[in-house]
Parts: sequence; structure tokens; C-alpha cells
Amino acid sequence: MSDARLRPVVLTIAGSDSGGGAGIQADLKAIAAMGAWGATAITCLTSQNLDGVRSVQPTDPAILADQIDAVREGFNVRAVKTGMLYSSELTQVVVDRITHYPTVPLVVDPVMVATSGARLLRDDAVATLRRELLPLATLVTPNLHEAAILADRDVRDLPTMRDAAVAINQLGGAAVLVKGGHLAGDAVDLLFDGDQFHELHARRIPSGGADHGTGCTLASAIAAGLALGLPLPDAVSAAKRLLTDALRNRCGLGDGIEALDLFWQVGPRGTVMTL
Amino acid sequence: MSDARLRPVVLTIAGSDSGGGAGIQADLKAIAAMGAWGATAITCLTSQNLDGVRSVQPTDPAILADQIDAVREGFNVRAVKTGMLYSSELTQVVVDRITHYPTVPLVVDPVMVATSGARLLRDDAVATLRRELLPLATLVTPNLHEAAILADRDVRDLPTMRDAAVAINQLGGAAVLVKGGHLAGDAVDLLFDGDQFHELHARRIPSGGADHGTGCTLASAIAAGLALGLPLPDAVSAAKRLLTDALRNRCGLGDGIEALDLFWQVGPRGTVMTL
Repeated sequence: MSDARLRPVVLTIAGSDSGGGAGIQADLKAIAAMGAWGATAITCLTSQNLDGVRSVQPTDPAILADQIDAVREGFNVRAVKTGMLYSSELTQVVVDRITHYPTVPLVVDPVMVATSGARLLRDDAVATLRRELLPLATLVTPNLHEAAILADRDVRDLPTMRDAAVAINQLGGAAVLVKGGHLAGDAVDLLFDGDQFHELHARRIPSGGADHGTGCTLASAIAAGLALGLPLPDAVSAAKRLLTDALRNRCGLGDGIEALDLFWQVGPRGTVMTL
Repeated sequence: MSDARLRPVVLTIAGSDSGGGAGIQADLKAIAAMGAWGATAITCLTSQNLDGVRSVQPTDPAILADQIDAVREGFNVRAVKTGMLYSSELTQVVVDRITHYPTVPLVVDPVMVATSGARLLRDDAVATLRRELLPLATLVTPNLHEAAILADRDVRDLPTMRDAAVAINQLGGAAVLVKGGHLAGDAVDLLFDGDQFHELHARRIPSGGADHGTGCTLASAIAAGLALGLPLPDAVSAAKRLLTDALRNRCGLGDGIEALDLFWQVGPRGTVMTL
């Protein structure tokens, strides 16, 4: 069937979130919602719900390498996204295997701390991420807190976001998307492509607590956009639109819990859809 | 936002397939395509592509229990599905934790061997699954080979499928869906609800090699249907329709590889759709 629609393969290298709202679970949904195909290399299993992270099992480094290699050798991977890498050792495994994808776009979401406050990247891993992984990246997507750590300076408003973006770009040449979701007032994301600044303004959407997984969703959707052949600013815009739609059309999970809905167009099968 | 559409939570307890076509990756897609929300408890990480399984890291039993508990305590779980359980020890963990869901429908996909031939359930685990897990199940979904092992008899055609279904039902009272995908001629699935037989006929769709993950997809979609409140025969029918649509609308992943497409309605975002 040569006319089957093509789903370019996006590899996400990240942790598993048992609740399904963040980690590779969010990545797979975002990649599918963008029209691409998600493959995974899981860095660690987290037992968590919206109250917090209960326990973490890091993946054996050899098994992490095997997952990346099995995907690389078995599929035509068109973009890679990294999320929670947990330890310096696992970050180094990713660096070593990623060098086999020299021409494939790489989006690094420098996940450090969960919304619930749990540490998702050990201190020694920050140095490895900054020194070894960022020079391989096409784009890095820190929030204000992560930008402050990577740029080693205070980041709290648009001028300091600009300074941090330039500093992070100079670490290895990656474009930088500083996410302003935690700014006071309107949410402004700042994209610095190494040459120009692009400000992406969006009306703040009251998330109703449904902001779990927004960072994973955005970075994965950008990677999917790149896999689909979009230029970087267009991939970022398409991903922002997807995230905005998923927040605006959030769903209930019962018991008053709300969540991003990447498939808001999908009604319950075999039942009447009530939107 | 009390009018958010409700996505009932379905917990899948299964392995991870790095290629994204089977395991919890297929489960999450099928559950989302049915209009429900997938949460996960990962039993093991497999490094695999369509050529086979390269390596397996079983989850620490305590971490498997933590994942199930975190989901149970944090969300209103409306159905549970089990897939690859790998070892007797992990199967026993699932049994112990599942007893906390006495009123929640449980679909057991008794995954034993991958399409590629890799063993996915150790011999000693088959006994635990049969003796401990099946009595807790609402539905068990063996293929011909798995039905033969569970019923301890030859299964090769509709009459022997009927015999096996009755024998498996008598192991603990679960309804049984024997999947006839590997029958010669048309594919007939046989549902035995403990009282009546339902034959589900479907024209055989040439899969073009895209049948990786069909078992996971079907069982998860049935669990999602039950979570949505459908009676068992309707949940099975809705899941069969979803699988048939996903096979008929399969996608290309590049390099001639084809796969089930659970989201065939979703075009590439930000690009012109060419169907």
C-alpha cells in the first residue's frame, strides 16, 4: 500500500508517568495529535499521580541504550525529543547514542523539577546535560526556573529571558525557547534562534489545575512538527496552537480532576457524544 | 469547569514496546481513540523493533505495586487491562493489587509470545495467571495459541474454539474472547459470556505486516468501552470496529514499514494533508 499516509517517526527519550498526563505518555499523545508516530526510550519509571512522585526506578543504562538503538535501527527516525533524564549516567548514555543521529533534529526539554516539586534530574546530571547534550540540540525548551539554572542567572521577566536565551544559545549553538508560563500577567514564550528573537504571546488560559504535562506536550509537539518538515518557528507555533487547544478543551477524569485533552475531537465510541 | 467532557480512566498494566506499536504505547492510543484516558503500570521495558525483542528489563516488583497504587489512589479508575506480565512474581503483584478493585471491570490479555516469536511470559507465570488472575477477570482475550495453552487442548477451528472458551470460562468465571485472527479463511472471533456464544465475523484485511500490536489494541479498546459504560458485547463490537478501521487506514512509517493507525482522522498539523 504505497499510498498509506506517512507518519514520520519521532523518538522520545523520557520518563514514564503512571498517571498518563506527563512523560512519554504525554509525548505519545502530542506526537499522535500532530500527525506523527511516537517511539520511546524510557529513562525511568515513576510511580506518581497529581499529588506527587512516590517512587522512581531508573532504567539500566544498557537497556536505555538498547531501546534507542532498536528504534534507530528499526525505523527511519525523523526527530528526537529528550525529557526527564534523571542521572548523569543516563544523560551520558543518551549523548553517546544520539551522536548516531547527526542529521536528525533534537529537541531537549531540560526537565529538572516536577510541578509537584519532586526533583527529576540529579545535580551532577545538570552539568552533563549542559556540557554534553546541549551542543547536540536543535532546540532547548527551558521554563523560567530551568533557564535560570542553565544560564546561571536570575530570570523573571522578558529582558532577563532574552539574556538567558543568549547565554544558553552560547553553550553550544542550540536555539532556545524560554517558556514564560510562570510569568506574572500574560504568558509570553521567547524563541531565540541564535540570530533573531521571536515573542510568542498567548492569552493566559486558566488551567484549572490541568497544567500537568504541558512542558512534555509542547516539546514533543515541536519535535513532531520538525519531523513533519516544518521550519523551527512554524513547528513552535503549531505546537503552541496544539497546547492551547488542549488546555482550552481540557477534559475531566472524574472526582473533579481535569487534564489536557490532546484528542478533544474524539468522542466516546459507541456512545452519543456530548460536547 | 463542570461541563468538561469526561474521560473515564483506564489503567493498563503491561510492558513497554520501544517501537510504539504494541504494549502500553498501543494501549494508550487505543484508549484515547475510544474516548477514554489511559494510565499505566509498566511491568517491563522491552527494547524492540519489528525485527524482534532485543532485551527486557523487568520492573522491580515494589515499583510495579507503587505504579498501580499511585493510579488507584489518585484517579477514579473505571477499568483495568493487563497485557505482558512477564514473570510469576510480577503476575502475583498484579493479583495482589487488583484485589483492591473488586468492582472494576478487568480485561486480561494473556500475552505469552510476541508475533516475532519472543517469549513474553515465563512458564511458571502461566500457572499463576491461570490460577490467580483469571478468577478476577471480567474478560480474557486469548488468541488460538494462548487459548490452547490455557485450555490445555488443541484449538484450530470454530468447534475447538468453542470447547476452549468453555474450558477457560470454567477456570474462574471470566467471559472469553477467542481471537481467530490466525484461522485459515475469514477471521472469526468467538465471545463466550458464560452463557451464550457470539460469533464476530470480519472480512480478513490484508495487514501488509501492520498486525503488530493488534492484540494489545483490541483488549485495551474493550477495557475503554467497559469504562465508558458499554455492556460487554457492545464494548467488544466497538473495539473490533476500531481495530478494523485502524487496519484499513494503516499508515506508513517510512522505509516500507506499515502500522496500525488509531488516529487516521488526524492530519499533519500545519501542513497540507495528502490522503
